[in-house]
Amino acid sequence: MPLLRDLTDDEARAALVLKWGQTEPGTIPAWVAEMDYAVAPPVLDAVRAAVERGELGYPRDDRAGGELGAAYSRWAARHFNQDVDPDHVQVTADVTVGVRIALEVLSERAPFVLPLPAYDPQHGLGAITGLEQWGLPVDPDGDGYALDLDALDALFARGARTLLLTQPHNPGGHVFTRGELEGIRDVVTRHGARVVSDEIHGPLVLPGAEHVPYLSIDGTADHAVAVTAASKAFNVPGLKCAQILTTDAATRDRLLTIPWAQNDSWGSLGVAAALAAYDHGDAWLAELIERLDQQRTLLASLVAEHLPDARMRPLEATYMAWLDLRAYGHDDPAAVIRRGGVRVSPGESYWPGLTGHVRLNIATSPDRLTEIVRRMGAALTDRA
Amino acid sequence: MPLLRDLTDDEARAALVLKWGQTEPGTIPAWVAEMDYAVAPPVLDAVRAAVERGELGYPRDDRAGGELGAAYSRWAARHFNQDVDPDHVQVTADVTVGVRIALEVLSERAPFVLPLPAYDPQHGLGAITGLEQWGLPVDPDGDGYALDLDALDALFARGARTLLLTQPHNPGGHVFTRGELEGIRDVVTRHGARVVSDEIHGPLVLPGAEHVPYLSIDGTADHAVAVTAASKAFNVPGLKCAQILTTDAATRDRLLTIPWAQNDSWGSLGVAAALAAYDHGDAWLAELIERLDQQRTLLASLVAEHLPDARMRPLEATYMAWLDLRAYGHDDPAAVIRRGGVRVSPGESYWPGLTGHVRLNIATSPDRLTEIVRRMGAALTDRA
Repeated sequence: MPLLRDLTDDEARAALVLKWGQTEPGTIPAWVAEMDYAVAPPVLDAVRAAVERGELGYPRDDRAGGELGAAYSRWAARHFNQDVDPDHVQVTADVTVGVRIALEVLSERAPFVLPLPAYDPQHGLGAITGLEQWGLPVDPDGDGYALDLDALDALFARGARTLLLTQPHNPGGHVFTRGELEGIRDVVTRHGARVVSDEIHGPLVLPGAEHVPYLSIDGTADHAVAVTAASKAFNVPGLKCAQILTTDAATRDRLLTIPWAQNDSWGSLGVAAALAAYDHGDAWLAELIERLDQQRTLLASLVAEHLPDARMRPLEATYMAWLDLRAYGHDDPAAVIRRGGVRVSPGESYWPGLTGHVRLNIATSPDRLTEIVRRMGAALTDRA
Repeated sequence: MPLLRDLTDDEARAALVLKWGQTEPGTIPAWVAEMDYAVAPPVLDAVRAAVERGELGYPRDDRAGGELGAAYSRWAARHFNQDVDPDHVQVTADVTVGVRIALEVLSERAPFVLPLPAYDPQHGLGAITGLEQWGLPVDPDGDGYALDLDALDALFARGARTLLLTQPHNPGGHVFTRGELEGIRDVVTRHGARVVSDEIHGPLVLPGAEHVPYLSIDGTADHAVAVTAASKAFNVPGLKCAQILTTDAATRDRLLTIPWAQNDSWGSLGVAAALAAYDHGDAWLAELIERLDQQRTLLASLVAEHLPDARMRPLEATYMAWLDLRAYGHDDPAAVIRRGGVRVSPGESYWPGLTGHVRLNIATSPDRLTEIVRRMGAALTDRA
């Protein structure tokens, strides 16, 4: 019996109170990064068991290491062939909180570099941390998603001191190769700069690519932290648990000695879910990846049929496709598509000022995806 | 059948993974602010139902108002006779996050005043926000817990711009009267300063006192916000949900227009728990207050018997007693008590440099409380 189970519309509306609950009836939600699948049985069982134990109070205060560190270490060894010291795994509420803490605690009071497009909440980090935020555009007309290392070099030369890397990339769907990461490292080390690597999509690399943790690259220990979580791959972002990873004792200790109130808002059930996901989630995740791979293939044929003028770079990871729809002539294609019965995320959320792009969430059933792309095509070409 | 149910030791150890789980076996935990009672049935049922719906994803993004605002408004009307506009109820992860946001967004870049003793995580807020933190000592030899308004006036005159009020007070157990709050308001308005009022213990006012929300005092709307939560009274701090309250549209709108990532880490099950607590928790809460009132009476007789030289100001709210044990001659009585088989919180956590005090958590069974105070007396007087 398959472990992965599609939610019915009614189930999805009850479970996904943001994605479905805040989309108007009749419109298919394909926006925020949640999946229309039931929570993995071992994760759901662990949450249920924790609720029955009454484990709704404060989580344990071992901010690093502990059971969670050990479980993540085992996971990283199996999935990424990465040697993670459990004591270098710190808990936090979510990846954006972890990124914020890294910027606040580790980064110099100087601009940080944000490759564009970028995950929407990251755009607020400059205002929140008081650091200037300098965009590093990835050419919308280019073929791939590699960073322009000369441009990165120039930004560091002008005074930027931190790169906020999201790898695998959201919304780009790109998996950075070892060579690309080494190139980034070389630029960063040349300037004595830092990297904060958001790797929450690491478990969602699709067949054909491989997730290389930035911290597994030689020479990154003293300038980088990574932030990850089980919450994206296992669809439980409402439980509040992520991990900050270090490989350098000084960096870890700086993070461990911040005031308690700067990092004490993770959830007890988030810990229970993460432990189950990391230790017992492999079989479900394998089915998920198989499904997403099928959805990716289906998407390609649907796009060829209904959106022949769309451009899409290879979707190597995540379940979000970044679609260049400029050929259809709408500045805000998401608005047009929404009137046509599908809610996708406007590209401007990821790159203010960029027109003609959308992010499409394909983590649903084949039937829904088929109808989604059909409606998108009809809306954009006025064949409704 | 009573709704309030005592946890057995085994149940408490499984449920309260911090309070019990991180206290050495054989030692009775009476430290961190959690209660040795089962979660209120309507709250537990609501969490169970949300888990069964699979509501583990992103909560709805209505950061103000919505169901939670409406439920809190009904609650405040019933419990505090307070008229709260649901649209002036904003959600956040926990009270300390809410206080931090208020300091970051609303306060001038100038020192804030922290009455001492103070809830331990509040001590980190100066370092986190970059604001200087000026203590306002409440005389350990005084009778009550009122703030010294002349001293407050002097701190504002010297440049402080915000008062961080905790009312009812933790660890002082004091309920501020309307007259005291009006006195504070007068000093604050004279200086054009601000108040952030942490009112998480508002539901835990014991018979004989009454919680007066600071925002219900005339003339506070344009200078104050309050932060509260169901998580303390209902023992579910691990689910991550609190409320920021405003009464002034400009203040509310400033908080609503902060970047999403500055306030997006509340938990989906925390919302479910809060809705149930606010709408269906009254009967359980009434039993809790009755029990805590009994525990308070029991504590008084136990202290008289076993700790006759202890000083304790009236416990008007909360389940934390602030004990002055200086008469027993130990700088760190919590350490002595822990060797005697009870874990209480050292007074220095609430007032760095203050010796001879402890905070004692009485939210347990009468039997445990009896044994706790017996052991404390034996440890402090070497009658072990």
